[in-house]
Amino acid sequence: MGRWVIIAAERGRRPIDFSLREKETLPLSGTCPFCQGNEAMTPPEIVAYRKIGKANSPGWLVRVVPSRNPVLRIEGELGRRAVGIYDMMNGVGAHEVIIETPEHQPHLDELEISQLGKIFRIYRDRILDLKKDRRFKYLLIFKNYGSRAGASTISHLHSQLIATPVTPKRVKSELIGAKRYFDYKKRCIYCDILRQEVELGKRTILENKGFLAWAPFAARFPFEVWIIPKRHSPDYETISDEEINDLGRLMKDLMGRLRQGLSDPPYNYILHTGPNRIPRRGYWSTIDDDFHWHLEIMPRLTRLGGFEWGSGFYINLTPPEDVAKFFRESLKDV
Amino acid sequence: MGRWVIIAAERGRRPIDFSLREKETLPLSGTCPFCQGNEAMTPPEIVAYRKIGKANSPGWLVRVVPSRNPVLRIEGELGRRAVGIYDMMNGVGAHEVIIETPEHQPHLDELEISQLGKIFRIYRDRILDLKKDRRFKYLLIFKNYGSRAGASTISHLHSQLIATPVTPKRVKSELIGAKRYFDYKKRCIYCDILRQEVELGKRTILENKGFLAWAPFAARFPFEVWIIPKRHSPDYETISDEEINDLGRLMKDLMGRLRQGLSDPPYNYILHTGPNRIPRRGYWSTIDDDFHWHLEIMPRLTRLGGFEWGSGFYINLTPPEDVAKFFRESLKDV
Repeated sequence: MGRWVIIAAERGRRPIDFSLREKETLPLSGTCPFCQGNEAMTPPEIVAYRKIGKANSPGWLVRVVPSRNPVLRIEGELGRRAVGIYDMMNGVGAHEVIIETPEHQPHLDELEISQLGKIFRIYRDRILDLKKDRRFKYLLIFKNYGSRAGASTISHLHSQLIATPVTPKRVKSELIGAKRYFDYKKRCIYCDILRQEVELGKRTILENKGFLAWAPFAARFPFEVWIIPKRHSPDYETISDEEINDLGRLMKDLMGRLRQGLSDPPYNYILHTGPNRIPRRGYWSTIDDDFHWHLEIMPRLTRLGGFEWGSGFYINLTPPEDVAKFFRESLKDV
Repeated sequence: MGRWVIIAAERGRRPIDFSLREKETLPLSGTCPFCQGNEAMTPPEIVAYRKIGKANSPGWLVRVVPSRNPVLRIEGELGRRAVGIYDMMNGVGAHEVIIETPEHQPHLDELEISQLGKIFRIYRDRILDLKKDRRFKYLLIFKNYGSRAGASTISHLHSQLIATPVTPKRVKSELIGAKRYFDYKKRCIYCDILRQEVELGKRTILENKGFLAWAPFAARFPFEVWIIPKRHSPDYETISDEEINDLGRLMKDLMGRLRQGLSDPPYNYILHTGPNRIPRRGYWSTIDDDFHWHLEIMPRLTRLGGFEWGSGFYINLTPPEDVAKFFRESLKDV
C-alpha cells in the first residue's frame, strides 16, 4: 500500500529490553562521545570545520560522523524484489550525525549566532556532497531533542542526516500538494502563504531580511513553528552565506523563546527541501517553481493516540494566533 | 495540502500547563468516573447493556457515554469555508466513550470472553446507530492504553468512538491502496494476504474459525499485530454473533500474551472499517469487494523522532517473523 518500513534487525533489542522503561539520562561530559577530546568514541569523521588540528583530534568547531547505529547503510545495491505479494529492497542509504558544538551544550539558543551559522553551512556542504550519489533520492536532515521527541540519551547538541533510496511518502505527498496548487494558480503556494501571513500579521512570530517564522494555520502540534526563506528556492543547498546568517539569528531568538516560554520542551525540527532529481525531467518538471524549502519545528508536548494514528487528523489544543502571540510576547531575557 | 487539523481551543490548556511533565496516575477505585456507582460523574449514558437498573444507575455491563472533553461536538452545521487561502469547517462530529466493564479493571485479557463479546457487540450497535446521521463520513473506534499511547489518567478499561465530518486522510489512503490492487487483480488484497500468511505460517500468531492474528509484513511498530476476519466484509457492523465470540476469544488470548510477554506495554488498537457511503456510488463503487475490515494493535514501545515524522517511513527493530514466534511461544499462563 505504498508503505515502506525499515526492518533494522541488527539494531534490534530482545523483547525483554523493550519492557524496560526509558529514562532521560544526561551523560557526564567526560563520557560523552560527542565532546571534544573524545573523538575516538565515534566512527572516523566525514568532515569537520576546524580551527586547528588534524582529522579526529580536538580543534574542530562542527563535526560530521557516520552514525554508530545506522538505520540505513551505504554499502551495496538496492536489489528491489518481490516477497510473495510484498515488495522488499535492501536498506541502502547513509546515516550521519552532525555534532553541533565541541563543548557539552544541549541548548541551541546558547550558541553564538556564528556557531549556528556553521551548523547551517555544514548542512549545505553535506547535501551538496551526497547529492552526487544517484542512489539517494532524498536527504532528510532533522533534530530530535529530548527523549519524548525520539532522542537518544546523548544530550550534546547534534542533528542527523539520513539519505534514503526512495523519496519518502510524506515528502512525496507534500510535493504533490505544492504541484497541484501550482498547476492551478501558476504560483508557489509557499510564496502565497508567506505574503498572506506577513500582510495579516496575526500568526507571524519573528521576521528578518531573509526569513519569516510563523505559527502555521493547520499546525499539527501545539506551538508548532515554521521558518521559510523569503527568496523562493526549492533546494536548501542554494542558501547564501547572508541567508545563513539571518537564519542563525532568527533560530537563536526563536529557540530561546521556545525553551524559556515552554520550560525546555522536547522538540523535533525537520528540514523540508526538494528531492534529488535530474533537472526538469519527469513528474517533478515544475518543482523549481512550485516547491519552496522550509524548516518545521514541532514541540512534542502532547502524545499521539489512536485517534491521530487512525485518522491522520491532529488535535491541536492551541490556535496558531495564540501561539504567535505567546512567542512574540515571550522575551528571551526574562 | 489536504491536511485537516482540529483546533480544540476549548479543551486547551494554558502554555504553562504544557510544561508540566505528565505522570501516570491510577485513580483509586472510589474516585474513578467509570466505576459502577459513579454514574453521575459522567455525562448521561447514550446506551448500556444492563442486568438490572435504570439508565445512569448501577447494574450495567457495558456503558457508552459522551466524552466529557470531546474533540468534535455533535451540534451544528459543517459550514465549510475559505479563510484566506486556507479552508476551514466547524468541528461537527461525535465523541463517545465505551466503558468496557463496571469494575475497576485495566487489563482487557482479565475480562471473561463473554464480556469481551459485549464490547465488540456494542461497537456494532454504535456504528449502526451513528451511520444513520449523514453528516458523519467516518466512524473511528480505537483504544489508548497507557500514557505513552495517548491515554488519559483514567486506567479503567475503555475505548473511544469519534465520528468525523470528512473521511480521514489515513483511511482514504488505505482505501485507495486497496482499490488500486483490486482494479489490477480483481481480488481483495486483504483476502490475498490472509491466504498467503496462513499458507506460509511464519508470521501467524493465533487463528480460530473466524479470525487470524498475524505480525504484518511491513509493521510500523515493534510487536504490531493485525487481526482480520476470515469472511470478506468491508464493514465491521456486519460481524455475526458467532464471529464476535471468536474475536473475543482470540483477543483475550492475544492481549494476555502481549501483557505478559512485554511487561504490560502501552498500546493502541484501531478498528479499520469502511467509511459511510451511499451504496455503490462514486469513487467507492468497488469498496464492497476491495476493502476488508480489520483491527490493528500497535504496542508503543519506541518513540517516533524526526526521521519518522519527516519521511513517513518507520524504523522497526523487530522482524515480523521474530514477533510471531515470540507471541506463539509466550504462554498465557506463565
